[in-house]
Amino acid sequence: MISVQEAEKLILDSIGEIETETVALDATLGRCLREPISADRALPPFDRATLDGIAINSSAYNTGQRKFQIHGTAAAGAPQQELPDIKSCLEIMTGAPLPKLADCVVRIEDVDITAKTATLKDNLQLEYHTAVHGQGSDCKTGDELLTPNRRLTAKEIAIAASVGKSEIAVSKSPNIAIVSTGDELVSIDQIPESHQIRRSNDITLSAALVSAGFPNVELVHIPDDPELIETRLRELTARCDAIVLAGGVSKGKYDYIPETLAKLGVSIRFQWVSQRPGKPMWYGQFSRDGSRLPVFALPGNPVSCFTCLRRYVIPALEKWTGLPPSKPLYAKLTHDLTFKPEITLFLPASTDPRPSGELWAKPVLFNTSGDFISVAQTDGFLELPKTRSIFPEGEPFQFYPWPR
Amino acid sequence: MISVQEAEKLILDSIGEIETETVALDATLGRCLREPISADRALPPFDRATLDGIAINSSAYNTGQRKFQIHGTAAAGAPQQELPDIKSCLEIMTGAPLPKLADCVVRIEDVDITAKTATLKDNLQLEYHTAVHGQGSDCKTGDELLTPNRRLTAKEIAIAASVGKSEIAVSKSPNIAIVSTGDELVSIDQIPESHQIRRSNDITLSAALVSAGFPNVELVHIPDDPELIETRLRELTARCDAIVLAGGVSKGKYDYIPETLAKLGVSIRFQWVSQRPGKPMWYGQFSRDGSRLPVFALPGNPVSCFTCLRRYVIPALEKWTGLPPSKPLYAKLTHDLTFKPEITLFLPASTDPRPSGELWAKPVLFNTSGDFISVAQTDGFLELPKTRSIFPEGEPFQFYPWPR
Repeated sequence: MISVQEAEKLILDSIGEIETETVALDATLGRCLREPISADRALPPFDRATLDGIAINSSAYNTGQRKFQIHGTAAAGAPQQELPDIKSCLEIMTGAPLPKLADCVVRIEDVDITAKTATLKDNLQLEYHTAVHGQGSDCKTGDELLTPNRRLTAKEIAIAASVGKSEIAVSKSPNIAIVSTGDELVSIDQIPESHQIRRSNDITLSAALVSAGFPNVELVHIPDDPELIETRLRELTARCDAIVLAGGVSKGKYDYIPETLAKLGVSIRFQWVSQRPGKPMWYGQFSRDGSRLPVFALPGNPVSCFTCLRRYVIPALEKWTGLPPSKPLYAKLTHDLTFKPEITLFLPASTDPRPSGELWAKPVLFNTSGDFISVAQTDGFLELPKTRSIFPEGEPFQFYPWPR
Repeated sequence: MISVQEAEKLILDSIGEIETETVALDATLGRCLREPISADRALPPFDRATLDGIAINSSAYNTGQRKFQIHGTAAAGAPQQELPDIKSCLEIMTGAPLPKLADCVVRIEDVDITAKTATLKDNLQLEYHTAVHGQGSDCKTGDELLTPNRRLTAKEIAIAASVGKSEIAVSKSPNIAIVSTGDELVSIDQIPESHQIRRSNDITLSAALVSAGFPNVELVHIPDDPELIETRLRELTARCDAIVLAGGVSKGKYDYIPETLAKLGVSIRFQWVSQRPGKPMWYGQFSRDGSRLPVFALPGNPVSCFTCLRRYVIPALEKWTGLPPSKPLYAKLTHDLTFKPEITLFLPASTDPRPSGELWAKPVLFNTSGDFISVAQTDGFLELPKTRSIFPEGEPFQFYPWPR
């Protein structure tokens, strides 16, 4: 039985980097950027008015002039104009290029306009580039604005759009099969017999993977029949980039999965992790076309399955697709806690962010690894190290938020 | 000019509750639950083995018996069996119903099986329901497991699936038009003239809304032509549930938007908020079929636009769809800061969660509201209140994470 840290390291060390593909910018949300994004021109590309008003030369105002003749309007989207002389002005709209000979913008609230004359208030603070976003002040041509290997969220998409990247190189989105087995499972819309339960692990893992940014998921249910299991798994190893098994991985007589996978070339890297929940978890890999592809076999108990997905599978998929690890979060325990077994405890907890800037977490003491009801009231779990058994109120531990 | 808090209150107070619709469970991720989810039977529905091993009666073991004759196998998914007598056993698989006369499960690691006999180790702690998840221990029939008005994430979907909700009542996903205007804007794949810029606000707002759980978004660009603006806005107010305008809302000569919207029955609730960035923002509503529908007019500067979306639009959409407000987060400033104007500052910042359980945030001092480049290096923004001008290192302020 290996530790949580050993299991994590074995998985992450074995994971390479998935291929790159080029997709339209509006399809990149949540994907991992795989090329540098550079400025194709200086930004802003011209001296740009930051508000509506009049464009003047500040030296005229600062030497006492208050009335300026208006010679027209500088609109956003129109080419740069020019003042007839430094004693005149143009009306100007937010986003418009500052006219030649002007060097600042006076906001409309500080101007009284009658007929063709703008009269300015006294005591305005006007100087070179007041209310002007100077050409090149954000970046120069060729500046690297985004480095590769980061998640494309709205703000990265904003930058890519502004420099004209209508297509962009991103990591491929792995095609993930979620495989459930077990004859005790019936579909959600059936009324189960008393010895049966509804199949919920697959839809839960699927939702969690989609939330975590891995939408390319398919659900596969296989009855407890050795021949069918082999046929379906053979097909999945030929076609899918990753396999996540929910159940069928412990030591039971009817757990055909491990031997079938071995037959199909999946080599197990480890099984049994000193953790609760999720002890029977195993991890393996298979080769296809020169790539090593991951197989995660998660325990069938719903909470075990979900916790292992969060703790191991999602970080592995993030690494595989080139995403940086999330910043680790830490939260303080709201209660004293004793946990005797020498294994790591993943303790579902509800966060309590306080106005002091401290993050606290209130653990939910769930009765077994099958109890999803109390877990639904939590935001994630605290990881309590296996080397200890007493965990005092107020001590911080690493906190893993659930996917949402 | 109203305060940030007044603007927030005016918006949230004006927002009602959107209609409900029933959708398939696998399409509910991120939606707001609008019906209670109750247990259709006790869970677990039977005394359920939590691991693989043998099912025995603990009194036999505790009175000294170590060898148990194996009378068969209890598999997950098969109906409940019965021990021939309390001195015998069945092999049992995780998830299987505990046989009658048995009262606990001994894990396979503690049993030596030869031919038809199981020999148990000494000194095992066995008692009633060891390794058994008792019938009804998670919930009784009719227990309310999920209350309405919460976001459906993977863990809520797990519960809904386990009680057979293959369809579920959720809030309608509002159909949101993102309208950009301005003749200075060209499409992403064009090479702009020096006085033009690429259109990035719409794709950015769209990505942010999708990330925040509002995927039903369409992008509409309208040139600066009063007739076209009226035609398109008329069509959008007839058809869309919400309108978000990016730009065209300040006091400029070519900003036809406010007067056109007024003509179409949109009444402005407020304009001008004492905040940086985002001062010119306004908010209005229009009526259609007895519902009051929101119009958010955000300033055209990219950072202003994005910040106002996060601060006002997303919380409004959350309230409208019945979602509870997010737990407020607080982070401590990593640097002393002075900000003179008597307006609220939304200060982009990069979080630094520390092992102490404290959340810190490092502000990025961006030069203007048009500079998205430095904002892309942040995780969200701190809200610094307008009543102060000195903000010392170590003081906590409310932190708003960017959508991701």
